[in-house]
Amino acid sequence: MRAKRSERRGQEETDPKTVKELRIGVVDTMFARFDMGASARAELESCSGFGESFTVISRTVPGFKDLAVAAMNMIQKDGCSIVVALGMPGSAPIDKQCAHEASQGIMQAQLMTATPILEVFVHEDESDDPQVLAKVFDDRSRKHARKRVLDAVRPRPVEPSSGSGCSPGFR
Amino acid sequence: MRAKRSERRGQEETDPKTVKELRIGVVDTMFARFDMGASARAELESCSGFGESFTVISRTVPGFKDLAVAAMNMIQKDGCSIVVALGMPGSAPIDKQCAHEASQGIMQAQLMTATPILEVFVHEDESDDPQVLAKVFDDRSRKHARKRVLDAVRPRPVEPSSGSGCSPGFR
Amino acid sequence: MRAKRSERRGQEETDPKTVKELRIGVVDTMFARFDMGASARAELESCSGFGESFTVISRTVPGFKDLAVAAMNMIQKDGCSIVVALGMPGSAPIDKQCAHEASQGIMQAQLMTATPILEVFVHEDESDDPQVLAKVFDDRSRKHARKRVLDAVRPRPVEPSSGSGCSPGFR
Amino acid sequence: MRAKRSERRGQEETDPKTVKELRIGVVDTMFARFDMGASARAELESCSGFGESFTVISRTVPGFKDLAVAAMNMIQKDGCSIVVALGMPGSAPIDKQCAHEASQGIMQAQLMTATPILEVFVHEDESDDPQVLAKVFDDRSRKHARKRVLDAVRPRPVEPSSGSGCSPGFR
Amino acid sequence: MRAKRSERRGQEETDPKTVKELRIGVVDTMFARFDMGASARAELESCSGFGESFTVISRTVPGFKDLAVAAMNMIQKDGCSIVVALGMPGSAPIDKQCAHEASQGIMQAQLMTATPILEVFVHEDESDDPQVLAKVFDDRSRKHARKRVLDAVRPRPVEPSSGSGCSPGFR
Repeated sequence: MRAKRSERRGQEETDPKTVKELRIGVVDTMFARFDMGASARAELESCSGFGESFTVISRTVPGFKDLAVAAMNMIQKDGCSIVVALGMPGSAPIDKQCAHEASQGIMQAQLMTATPILEVFVHEDESDDPQVLAKVFDDRSRKHARKRVLDAVRPRPVEPSSGSGCSPGFR
Repeated sequence: MRAKRSERRGQEETDPKTVKELRIGVVDTMFARFDMGASARAELESCSGFGESFTVISRTVPGFKDLAVAAMNMIQKDGCSIVVALGMPGSAPIDKQCAHEASQGIMQAQLMTATPILEVFVHEDESDDPQVLAKVFDDRSRKHARKRVLDAVRPRPVEPSSGSGCSPGFR
Repeated sequence: MRAKRSERRGQEETDPKTVKELRIGVVDTMFARFDMGASARAELESCSGFGESFTVISRTVPGFKDLAVAAMNMIQKDGCSIVVALGMPGSAPIDKQCAHEASQGIMQAQLMTATPILEVFVHEDESDDPQVLAKVFDDRSRKHARKRVLDAVRPRPVEPSSGSGCSPGFR
Repeated sequence: MRAKRSERRGQEETDPKTVKELRIGVVDTMFARFDMGASARAELESCSGFGESFTVISRTVPGFKDLAVAAMNMIQKDGCSIVVALGMPGSAPIDKQCAHEASQGIMQAQLMTATPILEVFVHEDESDDPQVLAKVFDDRSRKHARKRVLDAVRPRPVEPSSGSGCSPGFR
Repeated sequence: MRAKRSERRGQEETDPKTVKELRIGVVDTMFARFDMGASARAELESCSGFGESFTVISRTVPGFKDLAVAAMNMIQKDGCSIVVALGMPGSAPIDKQCAHEASQGIMQAQLMTATPILEVFVHEDESDDPQVLAKVFDDRSRKHARKRVLDAVRPRPVEPSSGSGCSPGFR
């Protein structure tokens, strides 16, 4: 039987073998025309630390309105520290409203679990050209997945500002 | 008196007779012009495993804004592991706003119960032809109900990705 | 001092005098131009079982945005098993937005209490003719109130479907 | 140290000195062009019972999106039984969206505390004439504050309807 | 190990060294074109009491939809008493909808933590001139950060109104 998350966490600090337990979730949808999950997984597998400092858990749900509760369960039941939620809303007005509802659910799931869930939506009407669209799907899925790994595996230390007077400006 | 859900769950693993306890909820509305619940139930009854590995629980509520709390109660009080919520929003602007509110409620009910509730809405304005609309009602209710059974009864195992480098692309 | 709800519930099964404790809440607003609460109450009082199997609790709040928390309190503090919330949104755009916010609150209150709250809104712009509007007010308030009683007092038994193959279709 | 609210409540019934503990909160914003809080307070101070059966607690927050959490804290930390939240949304589209978000927050704060929070918003575009607008500010702030006192101090008894057959109609 | 927040709070009153523990959070986004966090931090560092009565904690998240859960974690895990959340929504319709969802999440995070989170959004379409926009970014980030310090470090005492009859009016 799997140990409770808090117990596993406690072990991480003392047992190198369980460092591997850091889990990144990837959840995508059956209804998307492009296999966004495969892109995200391929990218994550190419990140340094894959299989050592982190593993990837995947799920596929029917539509994008099923992403929020699935992501919540990947966090609460499967022990993911972070989830990438991938979907493809269509271009009809009703699709846009559904996407809004799905996004609100993903936002709420984040707050209820106090855990980041990255929504990566590619809207069907971003391009008419299937080849362009495929590239958008692949790029966005990969880019966000990688960013999440960096966030999760190498978190920026939270430190009080040093008062060094860094000058603000455009980056 | 019925045992608490956690107890029934515990029994499932050791007592074949209680495997039957996996419950799929179907909730529909009195106000829909088509008996969507009957389509969903007929489809579920034709799925392999019906009456053996799963049973179906039904409820009918007045309107689609009553679906969310009814689905929540089917999960929390009747022990359903998954619910299909069927409704037919009208075509007036106020109906569309109500449908949005109903959908937000269904999303929230999913997150509060950490359980999937599939919203299956057929919008009155999807077709002017009653025969076409009837077919949409029947098809959508059946298709989603079946998909839910497959999800619930034969869940895809959640496994760390194998790192086999599956190539992403359109499906 | 009043007993806790669960205790009263427990008594219902053994003590006929407490069957009377099933409470239906009616909450309306001061700002509505028509006394919707009176229509709802009159209808409930004409239902068989009134004063025997159920009683009616009433409250009036200032505006329709006060309905959600009032209904919640009628459930949690006054022991209502179901509440009918009656309001009359005006026709200006700001009124429509407020009605949307009020509806979202009523939806949320249902989920937080796991109890049905029926929103019965009559929109001021449903008719220009005060007589027609009065009839809409009266009809809708009565119809929904009655439906709620039937729901609460004579709940449809929740039974696994019999697998009898009822054929779906328009009703 | 202050006693817990339930304890203070318990004392109210036996100790006349603590009747004074009924607290009405008034929260307004720095960004409003009119001092709505002062109008509300002046009105409350002129109500019979001020300083005896109820007192008034005030806070000022930067903008109207800060009202919801401030009102929640006035209920949970300062022991208010009711709060009047006063704000002035501007006329640009982004202001209207922010007002919608602020209203949703106030609705949610009510439900999370099971306590009424009256939102009193005066929209900048209700009049072009500063004198008219000033009168709207003053009137609305006063009217709602007074209504709240009446609600809180002299609550209408919640009684089962008598079945007296009051006839419904326009008021 | 860090003491629980309530314990640290208790110490503040008796131990001058821990007064320093009052923490103000600043969270900004990688995707903003201007380093809003640097402006906010520079302003906070120039406030009297910096490093003595309060310190500043910073985090950067990918996009503005990640602000809500990050702010929640800065409150619940890092012990911030208040958070400034800085973002730059783009000008496309989808960006505006995402900003709405992000704002709703920030509102909800405030209510779930009962702690103020100040949303400071600069919309890309507020100006076409990069220099003007840069000034808006810098000014708004600084102004709101400073206001928050004043709020948090020198809270206005919550006192029952004195009934002194202050006359309301435009400010």
